[in-house]
Parts: sequence; structure tokens; C-alpha cells
Amino acid sequence: MEHFGAVEAGGTKFICGIGDETGNLIAEQRIETLSPTETLPKVVLFFQEKSKELKIRIKSIGIGSFGPLDLNPLSPAYGHITSTPKTGWPNTDIPGFLRDQLNCACTIDTDVNAAAYGEYLWGAGRNLGSLVYFTIGTGIGGGAIINGLPIHGLVHPEMGHCIVDHDEKEDPFSGVCPYHSDCFEGLANGPSIQARWGIKPEELPSSHPAWDLEARYIARALHSIITILSPQRIILGGGVMQQLSLLPKIRLLVKESLNGYVVSAAITSGIDGYIVAPVLGKQAGVLGSLALAIHPPEL
Amino acid sequence: MEHFGAVEAGGTKFICGIGDETGNLIAEQRIETLSPTETLPKVVLFFQEKSKELKIRIKSIGIGSFGPLDLNPLSPAYGHITSTPKTGWPNTDIPGFLRDQLNCACTIDTDVNAAAYGEYLWGAGRNLGSLVYFTIGTGIGGGAIINGLPIHGLVHPEMGHCIVDHDEKEDPFSGVCPYHSDCFEGLANGPSIQARWGIKPEELPSSHPAWDLEARYIARALHSIITILSPQRIILGGGVMQQLSLLPKIRLLVKESLNGYVVSAAITSGIDGYIVAPVLGKQAGVLGSLALAIHPPEL
Repeated sequence: MEHFGAVEAGGTKFICGIGDETGNLIAEQRIETLSPTETLPKVVLFFQEKSKELKIRIKSIGIGSFGPLDLNPLSPAYGHITSTPKTGWPNTDIPGFLRDQLNCACTIDTDVNAAAYGEYLWGAGRNLGSLVYFTIGTGIGGGAIINGLPIHGLVHPEMGHCIVDHDEKEDPFSGVCPYHSDCFEGLANGPSIQARWGIKPEELPSSHPAWDLEARYIARALHSIITILSPQRIILGGGVMQQLSLLPKIRLLVKESLNGYVVSAAITSGIDGYIVAPVLGKQAGVLGSLALAIHPPEL
Repeated sequence: MEHFGAVEAGGTKFICGIGDETGNLIAEQRIETLSPTETLPKVVLFFQEKSKELKIRIKSIGIGSFGPLDLNPLSPAYGHITSTPKTGWPNTDIPGFLRDQLNCACTIDTDVNAAAYGEYLWGAGRNLGSLVYFTIGTGIGGGAIINGLPIHGLVHPEMGHCIVDHDEKEDPFSGVCPYHSDCFEGLANGPSIQARWGIKPEELPSSHPAWDLEARYIARALHSIITILSPQRIILGGGVMQQLSLLPKIRLLVKESLNGYVVSAAITSGIDGYIVAPVLGKQAGVLGSLALAIHPPEL
């Protein structure tokens, strides 16, 4: 049995894991995200100590990281975090550091592409060729698998910053995105809900009108996702989606918004199976990172 | 030298072509789009007569077609036009008919995926891994090549129907899309320009405010395209883009709209080379169809 490492590199915590080739996690540890010089050596120590304790060798490590990342294999900064506002982290080369310290191969992608890849291999996207995965929480991010591969390109998708239509009569709130004010993330992330209604999302009852408005923005973003990418399934995770009344509202509004234009049974009669919660739940990130290590996508 | 066929199947005309393996067209014919029983036999006749006259054998035919199309290889209706409002054409199997009559292999994709693929192999997308191609005219359609392959999925992209933000104070016109009123196509296709201003787009002078509004809607749609797909280049063709003042306006407004969020020299300092006109011009459709025949994408 071969063993692989996973690092879900987030802005507040790193989740490190070790798994076997079937995707079964046998060790896991949470490490607080401080500066790179404080956090990364602890990641190395986890893999060194655990592999000694378990008497295994780690063949390679997959990293699903906050970004933005340089994912151009021809770039000298390939694999680096680039222009993040997070102090200490710009130009950090997580895979380079782990490769040097642990002497094993490392693959990196965005946190949401990793989660999308995990769901594609082992979760809600099994047996499909394409899917989109969204996390809707403090930030909004989207990853996508198309023809079996994560989308890269000019940089990588930043789906949270797509355009939605903001009706200022219905919702005079101006949005919280520092770049675009009222893009999707600016109008629908957790902080925008709190700023608009003065109540934390987790304290808003399911009957509060906040959830109808939230479902509307998510549905309009998904309308664009479906017309632009035509994914075979859409998976919605993240803290805001813990409000369970949202998912049925979103499904209804996506159908209404597309208004019969996209002729597919998945939308016209099977939308409950088309827009779904993550099967891997909160482990989508770490398992997606493990998936990158075990089955590195051949780009 | 091997020879290949191309069929650009449009709502008003079919352009048929024969080309060699380098993409060089050696014969071309325009056939009016009437009913399938009138038009398709003429397509067959073109290939039969021309290949006899030129003393060549056509190895395979690529078809770039109006849609919607069933592009699921596992579907019994694979390759058929599905629910088009165009009389006589629903459930038409163009590749099946040509295969039977001409006894050669046929590959089909959407007209815009074909054009995107032609530009990818031989035009503005050479040496790139991804691009998006838009035609902006009577309709608005977008095709995309990601990791070297056209996007399919649930069905195929219908990018003209993505959401843009419609400011009804600035533009009280309600939009012409019969499904969504004020989606991108509803607010920015040729008929919407004519309906809003009472003048045909080709007769509007470049100084008319119509073009600022048009550029704004295109730029906002491209903002979503860039954040969702992150393509390495965007190609804008079609009748409306014949107004040459549009392209510089669009470039400026895309930069303004993204507001520094997507950190890439292609946008921050090289946008004139990032959002471009088609290199293949009006031949993008027929050459893209030829490209599908010569180098069928391995999906």
C-alpha cells in the first residue's frame, strides 16, 4: 500500500493529512496559519513525525491552497502564492519548501480546484466529465473540472468575482468587495450578509428575508455558470450553505432564471440531483488535496 | 496530400468547403438554409461533384453547426440538432446524413466551438492552451477551448445568455431575449441595438452613444468570462464587431471593471493583445469546421 500527503492551505488554518491510495485518511492535523516561517516548518514536522510513527514513506503531497497562485508551468514562479494581501505570504513557494524539506514530489492547485477534484474523483462528481464546486462563506470561490481536468488559464478562475445583477431598489446595500463592490462575492458572502442585516448569518433564522435575497444572488451567478461552462453538476459548500433552507430556494430560482432555455432533464426535471451539497462535506479540501497527490491531473 | 470537408451550418446559409491537411481551402460553396430535405442533399452534391472534379477522396468532414446540439457521445441522439425554433430542423442528424450519403467520418460541434477551435489551431490562439471566441451579431454565442479541448458538459455553453447587470436608470430598454429579456444577448445583440435606438447597427455612426453602452455590456460579460474561465485570450467576431470603435472601448472597460483584481500582465499592460479580433475573420467558421475534421479533438 502506498501513502500520500495532503495539505489544505487556508487563510486561518492548514489541515495536513496522510492517506492511502484509496483516499482513506489515516492521520490528520490542524495547524494555525501564522507567517510562512512559523507555519510551514510545522507542516514538515507533521509529515516527518507521522511517517516515522506509522512506518510509512510518503510518495507525494497534494496542496490545495488559498491564492492567487501562479499555475503556469513555464513561469519561474510556478506554484507560488502571488499577490495575496495576507501578510508574509506573497511570493511564498509552498510546494518548493515541502519538496526540499521532505524530498518528495508536490502538486499544487487552488483550494477550490482541489475540492472540485476531490468531489470529481470520490464525491458528488463520480462518473461525470465536468463539475463546478463553490464554497460560499467568508469569501466565495469556485473551482471547475472540465473534460477531467481542473481549469487553469490566464491565471485560474476567481468565480466569486463574476457579475450578478444588483437591483438597488430591492437591495440598496452597496456590497463589500474592495475591488468591485457589488460582484457576486460583494453581495453574497458571509460578511455582506452581516453588514446588510446587522446579524451574523449563523444567527439569522431560516424565515428571515436575507435568505431569499441570498438565494437570488447565488441563483443568478449559477445562471451565468451554467450558460458559460455547462457543467454536468454543481456542488455548493461553505459556511453560508449551512443554512439548509438555501439549497431548495436556489434550485427553484435557477430553474426560474434559465426559464426553459437550457433543455436538459438535469435542469427541467432533475435539479435536486444537479445542484447538490458536497458529498465529502468539510473534508472536501483535504481529500481534494490528497486526490491531487494520488492522481495528479495530466495537464 | 489528404483532403477534408468542412460544413459551417448556419441559420441562413451553409458554407461548405474542401481543404488540405494544412488547412488550405481549395473549394468553397454557399448553400441557402431552407429545410433539411432541401439543403442537406445540396451539401452532399457539393462534396460528390467537387471531389470528382478535383480527383480527390474526402477523408472526413467537420461540421460547425447552429444548435442546440446533443453532444453527449452516450446519447442515442448524439450529434443531432435538438430543440431549435427553426422550422424543420429539430432532431436533424446532419453528421448521420452526411456519413450515410458520403461514406466518410463526420465530427460535429457548435458553430462557436468550431470557430474557437479554428482560431486555437490556426489563428489568434496558436500556442495557447485556452481561449474564448464570441460572435456578436444577430445572436451572441461563445465557444471555448480549455486544456486544448472544446467545452461540452451538460449540453454546451450558451454564453450569450449569461447575466449582465442592467442599470434601468441608464438604459430603460427592457431587452429582446424571449427567454431572459435582459441577459447579455437580450441587451447587446444586433436586434437589441436596432430596437433601442431605432437605427440599424451598421448605420449608427461611431460617435453615437449606442457604442458606449454596447461596449459596457460586452465588457461586463467579459468580466464574468475572465473570472469564471480565466482564458488565455478572448476573440471577438461577428457583425456588431464590424464597428471598429468598439474593440478599444471594450478593452478599456474590461480593465476598469476588473479593477486590478486579476493580476496578469495580459490584462494590466497587454490588453490589446488579450482581447482581439479573429485572425481567421469571416472564415473562422468554415476553417474551424475543417480543423475539427483534420484534428478531431480527443474528448
